[in-house]
Amino acid sequence: MTIERNKLGFALDGRDSTTMARAATITLARGTIQTPIFMPVGTVGTVKGLTPHELQDAGVQILLGNTYHLFLRPGTEVLQRHGDLHQFMRWDRPILTDSGGYQFFSLSRLCKYSDAGVVFSSHLDGSRHTFTPERVMQIQEAIGSDIHMQLDQCPALPATTEVLRGAMRRSAAWAMRSRVVAAEQRGALFAIIQGGTDLALREEHCAMLAGEDFAGFALGGLAVGEAPSEMYDVIEATTPHLPADRPRYLMGVGTPRDILEAIGRGVDMFDCVMPTRNARNGGLFTHGGKLNLKNARHLQDSAPPDAQCVCYTCCNYSRGYLAHLFRAQELLGPRLATIHNVAYYLSLVTGAREAILAGGFGAYRAACIAGWLEGEQERPSAG
Amino acid sequence: MTIERNKLGFALDGRDSTTMARAATITLARGTIQTPIFMPVGTVGTVKGLTPHELQDAGVQILLGNTYHLFLRPGTEVLQRHGDLHQFMRWDRPILTDSGGYQFFSLSRLCKYSDAGVVFSSHLDGSRHTFTPERVMQIQEAIGSDIHMQLDQCPALPATTEVLRGAMRRSAAWAMRSRVVAAEQRGALFAIIQGGTDLALREEHCAMLAGEDFAGFALGGLAVGEAPSEMYDVIEATTPHLPADRPRYLMGVGTPRDILEAIGRGVDMFDCVMPTRNARNGGLFTHGGKLNLKNARHLQDSAPPDAQCVCYTCCNYSRGYLAHLFRAQELLGPRLATIHNVAYYLSLVTGAREAILAGGFGAYRAACIAGWLEGEQERPSAG
Repeated sequence: MTIERNKLGFALDGRDSTTMARAATITLARGTIQTPIFMPVGTVGTVKGLTPHELQDAGVQILLGNTYHLFLRPGTEVLQRHGDLHQFMRWDRPILTDSGGYQFFSLSRLCKYSDAGVVFSSHLDGSRHTFTPERVMQIQEAIGSDIHMQLDQCPALPATTEVLRGAMRRSAAWAMRSRVVAAEQRGALFAIIQGGTDLALREEHCAMLAGEDFAGFALGGLAVGEAPSEMYDVIEATTPHLPADRPRYLMGVGTPRDILEAIGRGVDMFDCVMPTRNARNGGLFTHGGKLNLKNARHLQDSAPPDAQCVCYTCCNYSRGYLAHLFRAQELLGPRLATIHNVAYYLSLVTGAREAILAGGFGAYRAACIAGWLEGEQERPSAG
Repeated sequence: MTIERNKLGFALDGRDSTTMARAATITLARGTIQTPIFMPVGTVGTVKGLTPHELQDAGVQILLGNTYHLFLRPGTEVLQRHGDLHQFMRWDRPILTDSGGYQFFSLSRLCKYSDAGVVFSSHLDGSRHTFTPERVMQIQEAIGSDIHMQLDQCPALPATTEVLRGAMRRSAAWAMRSRVVAAEQRGALFAIIQGGTDLALREEHCAMLAGEDFAGFALGGLAVGEAPSEMYDVIEATTPHLPADRPRYLMGVGTPRDILEAIGRGVDMFDCVMPTRNARNGGLFTHGGKLNLKNARHLQDSAPPDAQCVCYTCCNYSRGYLAHLFRAQELLGPRLATIHNVAYYLSLVTGAREAILAGGFGAYRAACIAGWLEGEQERPSAG
């Protein structure tokens, strides 16, 4: 076993009979993770509105933290004063931190790339900072996350082959520089595969890194403007070129449908703001498709948000009460909706795991999709 | 036993040896309440940010709901569609509803009083409505609260004797009209004593109502502009004129100090938005006085908000983490602060009850005040 990989254990528990879906157990010092898994986003040390105890109750096994945001606020000095991010926010299970690459993509007016790294201005106060591949690794180690992501360059799509190739080569070089730092750290390092929708570039990037002993591999640069079908094609063309004995993480994706499609194409790990962000706007993901709690017609409805869900929200409150909370702009509304959406995403991947282990993932995926369509047809104005 | 009073049982458990403080048990169909008691404000069917389960954990025995707000949103039709407010918000312990009188005071530009009642415009959409004493009782019965407050007229202070006397006489007449409706209802009726800071008017109002079989009596029209010492004087001069065998409720008051001073003057029940509203702005009430969580100097502090408190927040999180949440404007900050403040107010009155039963309320009050002053002297910039 090599230096990188022994920070993270990976055991394949099963493969689906007809798709590329797989179930595995990832072992880290702070706990084990059963895949496929969804990681809720806790940007600055909190999954918006929820306590760690509520996350545990919803079945959360690993959280994502944002290096860019945590670096700016509260800063690593404060985190280290309290021990690390785990102790600060009272979450003792694993945390994965991103590298900031995606934030630089979404705040691109404020940053400048070179082979050395990224110079950027804080979106909070305009202060200037430099992230190099090495520094980002050090920041993540100070944060105390269990899985570190390399600094990468994520181009917006559509992009020319030249741009995609440049970002891919730079990201590959930064992966190798990150690996040198990781050798001295506690956190396990994941490399990120770029290449946009160019399947040859994706394969080339895999070829450059797959032989190295990264603890895991991520697919970056997706869900940044391309069509879902294009994304599915990229995933399907890329995962076969990644080592079968290490986790595969699709960054920043996506809808429940996206997640099932990616699982069927061999992805193990996911993160996305969608369940938490949509919840704050009154949007619920349910076994019967999407539900808009701001719709007045729910006020009279004493049914739970999702009759097939066993989360705290669905066990205790009606659609009518939630609709009232959203219409009155009461804090409890976003909170109860977030509890449900996080639990729903976790139940979606837990169901996928069970189906994979039973060899019937294809049928599970089809049944989920049919349930969403059926529910939404019953509510034409759901919005 | 008369019609009104048998909806509510009142048993005196003890009196303090040197003050007018008393401890009692109030029995309602939905549960018993041990006094002195603080009722958190759940304006439109939610104590902002908290679940009923968190309220129970904080020791809450009875909630307050606002008739004016609930009438406008979600409306009694929606509440009755779900059963009542208890079922709608999943709170099965007692609820007291105010009558709207205070909302008309605070939104006075939008309403017009006559002997018949109050015509007002909704602060939400400008729609016009009329509250009569009778209608307000019917709305509260539809809401399903356990204790109904009569419609009253609450003048701003300072006010002329003529204004105070007019509001007092009208409120007394409305009390008697409310009583007729209450005879046919499940909810117990409390009358409200007005009279501003005019002690003779307060006594006169008591004399008009104390012989009637209201289930309890409230002191209204306080904390509306007068000095704390004036308020304490009014309480001290009024409670001796109220029946000793029924609960006394001081409406809309106040700071921890106000509550202890009022308990020492014979008050049993309190409500106030202060603990919940201040919490949302980062203001904590602690055994060591007030704490402003937005202050940057707390970021480094790994101590709990209140070392003497056993609430969920103080058992799990540091001042530093809370300060970070407030600075990053994260939803979890207001929520954790509200949990603490509600628990603190409940522990304050629970401590008062224990001290009263032990005959040492005066010493308890003095020790609380000393603790607040001592803590605040250690933090001159607490704000």
